This record gives sequence, structure tokens and C-alpha cells, in this order.
Amino acid sequence: MAKNLTYKILGSKLKEGELVPGQQIAIEIDQTLTQDSTGTMAYLQLEAMDIDHVAVKKAVAYIDHNMLQTGFENMDDHEFIRSVAKRHGIVFSKPGNGVCHQLQLENFSKAGETLVGSDSHTPTCGAMSMIAIGAGGLDVAVAMASGKYYLACPSVVKVELKGIKASWVSAKDIILYVLQQLTVKGGVNKIIEYCGEGVASLSLTERATICNMGAELGATTSIFPSDERTREYLVQQGREEDYIPMQADEGATYHQELVVDLSALVPMVAKPHSPDAVVAASEVEGLKINQVVIGSCTNSSFADMMKAAKILEGNTVHPDVSLVIAPGSSSILAMLSQNGALAKMVQAGARILECGCGPCIGMGQAPLSKGVSLRTINRNFKGRSGTNDASVYLVSPEIAALSAIKGYLSLDFDDSMLLTEVPNTPFVKNAGFFLDEYDNSAPVVMGPNIKPVPRGEKLTDSIKGKVVLKVGDNISTDHIVPSDSKLLPYRSNVPHLAKFSYCKVDEGFYQRAMDNNGGFIVGGDNYGQGSSREHAALVPNYLKIKAIFAISFARIHRSNLINNGILPFVIEQSDYDFFNDQDEYVMSDLKESLDKGVVEVKNCTTNTSIEACLSLSSRERVMIEYGGLLNAIKEIGGDF
Amino acid sequence: MAKNLTYKILGSKLKEGELVPGQQIAIEIDQTLTQDSTGTMAYLQLEAMDIDHVAVKKAVAYIDHNMLQTGFENMDDHEFIRSVAKRHGIVFSKPGNGVCHQLQLENFSKAGETLVGSDSHTPTCGAMSMIAIGAGGLDVAVAMASGKYYLACPSVVKVELKGIKASWVSAKDIILYVLQQLTVKGGVNKIIEYCGEGVASLSLTERATICNMGAELGATTSIFPSDERTREYLVQQGREEDYIPMQADEGATYHQELVVDLSALVPMVAKPHSPDAVVAASEVEGLKINQVVIGSCTNSSFADMMKAAKILEGNTVHPDVSLVIAPGSSSILAMLSQNGALAKMVQAGARILECGCGPCIGMGQAPLSKGVSLRTINRNFKGRSGTNDASVYLVSPEIAALSAIKGYLSLDFDDSMLLTEVPNTPFVKNAGFFLDEYDNSAPVVMGPNIKPVPRGEKLTDSIKGKVVLKVGDNISTDHIVPSDSKLLPYRSNVPHLAKFSYCKVDEGFYQRAMDNNGGFIVGGDNYGQGSSREHAALVPNYLKIKAIFAISFARIHRSNLINNGILPFVIEQSDYDFFNDQDEYVMSDLKESLDKGVVEVKNCTTNTSIEACLSLSSRERVMIEYGGLLNAIKEIGGDF
Repeated sequence: MAKNLTYKILGSKLKEGELVPGQQIAIEIDQTLTQDSTGTMAYLQLEAMDIDHVAVKKAVAYIDHNMLQTGFENMDDHEFIRSVAKRHGIVFSKPGNGVCHQLQLENFSKAGETLVGSDSHTPTCGAMSMIAIGAGGLDVAVAMASGKYYLACPSVVKVELKGIKASWVSAKDIILYVLQQLTVKGGVNKIIEYCGEGVASLSLTERATICNMGAELGATTSIFPSDERTREYLVQQGREEDYIPMQADEGATYHQELVVDLSALVPMVAKPHSPDAVVAASEVEGLKINQVVIGSCTNSSFADMMKAAKILEGNTVHPDVSLVIAPGSSSILAMLSQNGALAKMVQAGARILECGCGPCIGMGQAPLSKGVSLRTINRNFKGRSGTNDASVYLVSPEIAALSAIKGYLSLDFDDSMLLTEVPNTPFVKNAGFFLDEYDNSAPVVMGPNIKPVPRGEKLTDSIKGKVVLKVGDNISTDHIVPSDSKLLPYRSNVPHLAKFSYCKVDEGFYQRAMDNNGGFIVGGDNYGQGSSREHAALVPNYLKIKAIFAISFARIHRSNLINNGILPFVIEQSDYDFFNDQDEYVMSDLKESLDKGVVEVKNCTTNTSIEACLSLSSRERVMIEYGGLLNAIKEIGGDF
Repeated sequence: MAKNLTYKILGSKLKEGELVPGQQIAIEIDQTLTQDSTGTMAYLQLEAMDIDHVAVKKAVAYIDHNMLQTGFENMDDHEFIRSVAKRHGIVFSKPGNGVCHQLQLENFSKAGETLVGSDSHTPTCGAMSMIAIGAGGLDVAVAMASGKYYLACPSVVKVELKGIKASWVSAKDIILYVLQQLTVKGGVNKIIEYCGEGVASLSLTERATICNMGAELGATTSIFPSDERTREYLVQQGREEDYIPMQADEGATYHQELVVDLSALVPMVAKPHSPDAVVAASEVEGLKINQVVIGSCTNSSFADMMKAAKILEGNTVHPDVSLVIAPGSSSILAMLSQNGALAKMVQAGARILECGCGPCIGMGQAPLSKGVSLRTINRNFKGRSGTNDASVYLVSPEIAALSAIKGYLSLDFDDSMLLTEVPNTPFVKNAGFFLDEYDNSAPVVMGPNIKPVPRGEKLTDSIKGKVVLKVGDNISTDHIVPSDSKLLPYRSNVPHLAKFSYCKVDEGFYQRAMDNNGGFIVGGDNYGQGSSREHAALVPNYLKIKAIFAISFARIHRSNLINNGILPFVIEQSDYDFFNDQDEYVMSDLKESLDKGVVEVKNCTTNTSIEACLSLSSRERVMIEYGGLLNAIKEIGGDF
């Protein structure tokens, strides 16, 4: 049977289960990546598994998030990660070396291989015809330890690219268009596979922009075929020998299809505050701006930088605008320095930031109050820039650079400003990769801000407690554990993060949870939506929250809760009012009830009760039994 | 009579008083500079003076301190300063344009002129034969408004440079040697004037390093003659027409002399935690290091960067070391990009930071816990790096770059690593200067974090209150208002800063001051030492502290208190115990007593009393009468 590219690769890596959408499968993992904001916790979890050498071909630990270093915490984390890398044969990428996804693509991507990374934009390497999936830190740690990754088998969406785009239309406009069509929920449990005549017109880094921002569709990942353009990129990177052509079989079938006519595409913009609030850029032309940011894992390639430099050349950034540019890797920065493009940017008045995530994750460059910022990044959620009342618009590097000169959002391209060909600047090897000789006895370096991973307790047959928090619908992981430049340095310190848990919803929550030795949380619909942040489960674990009762759960958060030994019970809408913050609740005969999937919850004061549901896979049931995935691995062995 | 260079210039600018050490004088000011961490407050004060165009030839508002922008506060401040600049004919230097002192030297310095700046390293322009003095923000605002600056006439120290230094000895080693000889108190109320045969062997930027770090001597400023090396620099900067030769008269007299034999000098290092804890670098050779910082207003010139690049070329930064480099200005960054030096740095594994103060002021790049950091900056006070238990060593760029490769403090120079000649890279004009058309009606842009300047109240004839804080000797402005990366963004928000006042000494102070509607503070010897931070007086003003009783006061803090209408009474050591935190104290007939210089302080409970002294100049007496300098200017007029 003719196979699509996705199932070809998944099939070749399948370890457990069947390629049927929705079924639990396990796949073999070739590569892993971590970044520092999720990595510190992932490596604490890896250390707790007592492994020797990692079980994957290539594991890389990047530092690209917490690079401002406004206190000792960041560099302590960097040193901790470096020390762990040495113990397990993991490549360490120094701070300043660049953004993980850019570097992984440049140096390690290989068609047909699999990658899981503790960052939601891991799908970037789909441009190299890889299955590249973002996951929670613990899942990545398990992949490093066992070489396996568990997921629900996704369905496959065919996106057919027809025609050729105009010169002033960019890859960013393609993915913004797809987001407009499919929305931020359109890709959930799906892999987006690009094909069609338009593919050959896109360079590898253009494909990377599209795969990268496929994360905003909620997709499991995105993927392109590997073809002559792929070879072209690998030649430029000095590793042509890594070229492997790959594509879907002729007549392959898909679960869903979308056609994009590139020749009809115009420049697009995502308006505040969602990446799918997409309109034609012409609709907001003339918008006065205060700041422009060019960079992030979405648009920081050598070609993107050269495009921006060409537009800036000989011009001056408008006095009203602060233009910041962060090249994606040290290699790109060195190349821009060598070929004179960086000098042109600086002469135009651009501020050059370190190669890192920076403004994209709100780590610096917060706009002014009520400011308007044009950015080439991937997300424009309210407040993510660091300024709650700022408006962030997502655009291509071309629009960003031109608008920086004009002082307003402009599409007034002079043809002479557009780069016709990316110059053949010799590739410069990144200086920031280190693979120390593997030494499992090397010491782990732990600064005072690095605290142990919270561990759950074995399941008891009866659980009693109070409701310490009752919230409404659509609680996000941002509500559960806020993320900003002040709290990001504490990702390795769950006890500290815990103090800020739910602080924007209910300031008393932390103290109540501490006073009651845990208890229960009651939520509404779509509990735990948003970022994959596993700290939103680690913190409740630390606070000894035993169970969460909600009308429905977001997929990743539900997994993270189970990974942490917390019971995510589903309740009927009509039973939401059954819970209050006065009474005590008890669940008895829990083990037997969980095997059935239905538990009786009793209000000890009123002596009334309801039923709550929890349907667990056999693997999940084991995790709950042992109080979480880490405990299960410790008891059963690394291959669990 | 043969005059030294210092008195030649001071004499030509003298507006009031006589050139007798210790006498109050006023001098005409040609140029002013501000940076953003002190500037926001300085411009709030300027606005309160209701002026039109500034009264100086050149006023420049730089943004170089708060550039991480982890919240809206920073960019709000930048926009505020920009809006004020437009209203008064002030040149605005955008964030990213570079460090104020480097930029002022490159673009505006002129022999024989005077400069006051709201930054302690303003003396950098002494290299251009200017009288360049650091001062509090309000004093700089007054200079902008009136063209005048008041100071105690300094004495002049002759530092004679003999012989020629070895190629591996740098300008940094010269000033470190001078610091070793004179200590951090050795320059108080003095101007350090360099002369002798060794002067001609030093380039202008080498002289700038020496003048810059003269601030660490506590000196009023430092100065070099203007000669052929000065012309050479101006030619390189494309402004040879600004060259004016200047030197001391033959046989000029000085108040103190020091001879430095350059030919005998060896590389030096300042050990933790003081810039005068200087030893020969050989004494700490081999010290294992974690971080190296090259940059800051002390060592970020084009030549310094080229020296570092030459050492790094073809080498790789040691895996154990994080090397960060911040060029001093956008012009330097562009030149390094054009001539390939930046590419060499990046290829070696250096992290390139924005052109700004950055790590020198603890604004990012905090070392790891207990880490060792080699830095080319000017101060290594405990905790200033952002990491309280880190050890910072001050060294030359050459030692810094070499050690970054080695992984330990190294002096093992290969001659081929040393730059024999600074390459003649064409000067690139800075793109970040803007002088808007003067428009006194342009709006002031005030973000929500910018709060009004606290204003004192007119002197009453009787003051009554409690002692809300009693502290010991050597209280520094850091104790009074702490400064770190978390609090620096709030320099324009005195009410917020007030909450942290004395927080490391007595957590209850703020609340007590609020509850008691102000009151008195009692201190020991040397009250208000350290940084010139005027916030250490603005905050007590905001908290309605009426008077401070101390055994002695640091010079600048005393001025700042009077500028804020707070009475700095000197008490006898034996009267320290007269004060307690229970009783109420009263001073009556204050106006008459102040004219005499002696006030009776009565304990209302015990009915006992002591005498406290306050000797005020007539100008100071007026400031106290009106409740501070700002009020006095408003009542009397801008020329006060």
C-alpha cells in the first residue's frame, strides 16, 4: 500500500502498538534535545533513573533560554547541565552557541530519524524529513534512558503546496496562512505533511520556519520531504554525506487534506493575542510601531538574517523604533560578521542580541507600556513579551526590517531591497559544542537553587482530604505555574515555584495547600490547557495534591499529572457543585475502583457521594500505582 | 605663575569663588551627560525646573544601563528620556548605541572643555584634556538648566609617567598600580593630572582607561594633556578639526606628586572585593576561572577589542569558561564586524553582548555560585556581579582573553598573540544619535512606573518626631537604597524603591517610617559612604525623614541630603546613646539656631538635651529653607 512519508518513518521506528490514529504507540528515538529552562528538571529526572550512557544515538543539551543571568541561578543551572552531560555521553551546547532548534537543524538533523525534545518547537527538524516531537522533560529523560517515546498515534494531514510564491511573500506567510485556515487547535493529534510542486521552491530553512510554527497548530509535528533543496543545505553546512532522499509514496493516502496556492498568497500578519488571529498584512498597513524583533527559532536562519540586512543596508532605523536582532546560532553570527552583513545592520542602528531565545520567551526586550511590537517569532500570547498591555504582531523578517526603517508596518517594498540570492558565505563551524569523554563517575554540580525532583507516594487504597482550590473553565498551565523573566530562573526549584502557584487566580492557594498537607483541586472544562510545562504537575506533586476533579483535561497536562502520580478524575458538569471548600472528601477501595475506571467520591460531612471517572492505559495504571513515572522506572527498571 | 593643566582649565571656566583647595567654587559647564539609571530622575528634576533649551553647548542623554528590559519599566524610561530630550535640545543616544563614556569620548570630547555627568565614570573624557566630573542627577540637571556646577575646589596630584611599558603591560596595569599606591580614598577632593615622558607612549584610549578608573581613587577627576596622540585619535574618528593642544606650563606646581616608572611595571590584578586590593598578577597565576568578561567603559575601546581578538584568533575558549564580550559602542561593533575581528571572537566561542554596561553593573551575566570571574571592568565590590559569593578579579583585556583560552588566570603570553599595531579600520559613524528639532511643547511621555520627584517642605521653626532607625558606622548608600538587577528598573519610582530602603539592615524600617510620618535617623561614623546614588536621599525625602544625626557624613551624601532638604546634623560620639527608638525629640527655634550652626535637640520624655551641629554655606542654607534645591530654584529662579 502506498504510504505517506509520516507513516513510512513511524513504521520504521515502531516498537509497540499499531499505526492507527489514537492508539498508544511507542517509537524508537534516535536523537533527543533539551534546553535549559526545561532541561535542568529533565536531567534531575534522568539522574534519578541511575543510567549510564544515554540509549540514543545523539543527545544534546542546549543552553538558550536563561542567558540573561540576572542572578547566580542561571549559571548554576548551566553548570549542572554540563556536569550531567559529561556523566552520560550527552553533547553540551554552551550558552551563546545558539538556539537549540537552529543548531540541531544545522548540525545533527538527518532524514528518516526521530527526535524528541523538551521544547514545543522541536518540530523544526521536520524540515529535514525527521519525525521531531516536542514533549515534557520527563518523557525526554525517559527517551534518553530507554531510547523509546510513547504517544497516541497521530493522523496525517496532507498540505499540498501549489504554484510559486511572489518574491515579497515568505515562508512565514505560508505558515500564517495555514494557521488562519486550521486555527491553533487544528493540528491536535495530527502530523502535518507538506507535499506538492511548491515544495521544491522552498529552501530548507524556509521549510524549517513552516515546521517550527506548526507547533502553533497544536500539531504533534510537521514534516517535509528530503530532496535536492535538502542536499543543497547540507552541502552548505559541509555535511553532504548526511543527505538521504525521502518522500511519500506515489498515491499515498492521508486523513485530511488542505491545498495552499502559493501563487495567490500575500504577506500575512498574526494580530494580538494569538498566532491564528491572522489577516492579510495590508489590513494593518500603516500601524505605528515602537519595537521590532528579528530572530527566534522561527526566523533566525542565515538567509533570514541576510534578507533583513539587505533591507537595512544604507538605511537608518526610525528614531521611534528599537530594532533588536538575534541571529539563530554562533555560526550564523560569525558568517554575518565575515560577509559584512552584520556591520550593515549595526550601521543602520540595529541592536544585536546574543544568539538565544531572548525576547521570544519574554526573556528581555519587553516593549514599553501599551507598546506595539512587530516580531518574527512564533507566539504573541498576551503578556508573553513581558509587558501585559503591549500588542505583539507576528510577521516575516522582510516586513519586520522594512517597518523598522519606516516606523510603521509597511509593505512598501522596493524590489531592490529584496535579496535575490542568498550569498555563498563559507559555513563557519559552531565553537560551542562539547562532548566530554564519557565518565559516569564525574560529579554532579548542584548550585543552591537546584532542588530535588518531587516524588509522589505509592497509591493507597483510601484517600481523604479537603478541596484546597476550586476554579473554573480553561485553566492554563500559565495559571498553575506562571512563567516570566522573574520566575524562569527557578525552573529547577519546585519548592520556590510552588509559592507562586495559582498566585494570579487565588493568592491563598499555596498556604492552604501547605496547611492541609495537600488535598484536592476542582476544575472546569479544558483544565491544564496551553504550554506543555510539566512544572504545572510537579508543583501540585510537591504540594501533595492527590487528585484533580475536572469536567475535562487538556491532553499533555493529563499525561504530566499521571507522570507525577496525580489522579486526573473526570466529573460530570452537574457534579461540579458537589464540591466545596468546607467539607472533607474520601475515596475508598481505590485500587479496585481504578481498575474499573469509576470511583465513588464521598462527602464525609453530608454523607452524599458522586462518581468520578478515570480511564487509564495499563502503563498509566502502573505509574499511578507507584506514585509516578520516575518511581515506576526505579521499581521496574529503565525499560518501563 | 606657571599653572598646572587642571587649574588652567578650571581658571578659564571659573564663575564663582577662588581656586583654593577646599573653597566652594562654581564653574561654567560646556557639556553634560546622563545615563538612564540616573537620568530618568535627573530629567524629572529638570522638568520640574520649567526650562526651555538647555544652557550648555552639548547635553547628551544616553541609554546604556537598563537594557535587558525584563519588564515594561525599562523601555518606558527610555521613551520618557527621549521625550524630554526633544523638549530641551538634548541629544538622545538610543539603547544599543553604546556606553555613555565611550560614546562621549568618541563623538563630543574636546580639550579644555568641562563636562558633568550623572555617572561616576564621567572622568573618562579627562583623556581628551577635559575637566570631566561625575555628579548626582540633580546637580547635572542644574548644570543643564544654568550652565553651572558647584564643587569644593580640588587640589591637584601630579602623576609623572617615566619610561616605556613592556608590550604585555597595559594601561589597566598602570591605573591598578596607581590604585595600589593611593588606595580607594587617595583621590578624595583631588584631581589626578598625568604628565611626563611616558604620556606620549599612551594612546588616547589607553589614557581613557586610566582616567576612567581614576574614579576608584575617589578623585574628583583625572586629566591628561592633549598632544599628537590626541590628534591621532581625532583623525581616526574623522574629526581632526576638534584638535586643540593643551598642557601644563613648564614648571607648574602641584599639591602632591607620584612617580610611576612604566618600564618597571608588571601585569597587575585587583583581587576581591576592592579595586585597590591590587597585587602583581603573577601572585594569582594559575587561578581556575569560570567566567571572563571583556568590556565596560574601562576597557571596551576598538584597540582593546582588537587586542582580545588577536589573542582569541584561531583558539577556542576553554570548555569550563564562559567568555562574554561587550564592545563599547555600535561604531566599534561595526568596525569589528567589517574587519573580521568579531568573526574571530565568535569562532573562538565568545558570547557577544549588546554594547552597554551589562555585567559591570550586575545587569546580567551573574557568575555561578562561588564562581571566579576575571573582568576588565572597574569595580569588584562584593555582590556587584549579581552573585554574592562570587569572586571578581579585575585585569587587562590581554590577561582576560588569554585566560579565557587557558581556563585559568594566565600570563603565559606568546609574543605572536600581542597586537603590534591597531589596524587602520575606517571609522564607522554611530547610528544611534538623534537630535530632534527643539520643541519645548512636545509632550512628556510617562509610563506607569515613572513617579514624581519627591519634594521637601519649607523649613519650620520647630521639628518634632521619633527616631525610626538607629544604625552604626560606615552605612553606605547601598544600605540605604540597594542596587541590583531587580531594583535598577525602579530608579524612576521612588515610592517603590522606598519599600526596600534599609531592607538588608532592618526590615521594619519602611513600615515604621510610614507609620510615624517620617522622623529621624541616627547614624555613626562615615554615614552615606560609597556610590553617589542620590536615591539614598530621595527615598528619605519621600519618607519624610526630617533630619539625620550622625557622627560624620560622607561628602556626596551630605550634599544630596541638603539638595533634598534633609538636615544632616553632626553629633558628638558621646551623644550617640542620647537617642533611642522610644522617645520623642524636638528642635525649636530652628531658623535662628541654623544661622548659628548649633541646634538644641531635646528628648521630650526625659527632658534632657544635647547640641547638634550643622555648618551650611549660604547657598545650602537657602536650599534648607525652601526644602531642597528644586524648591529653591522654583522660588528663586533657574540661576540659583
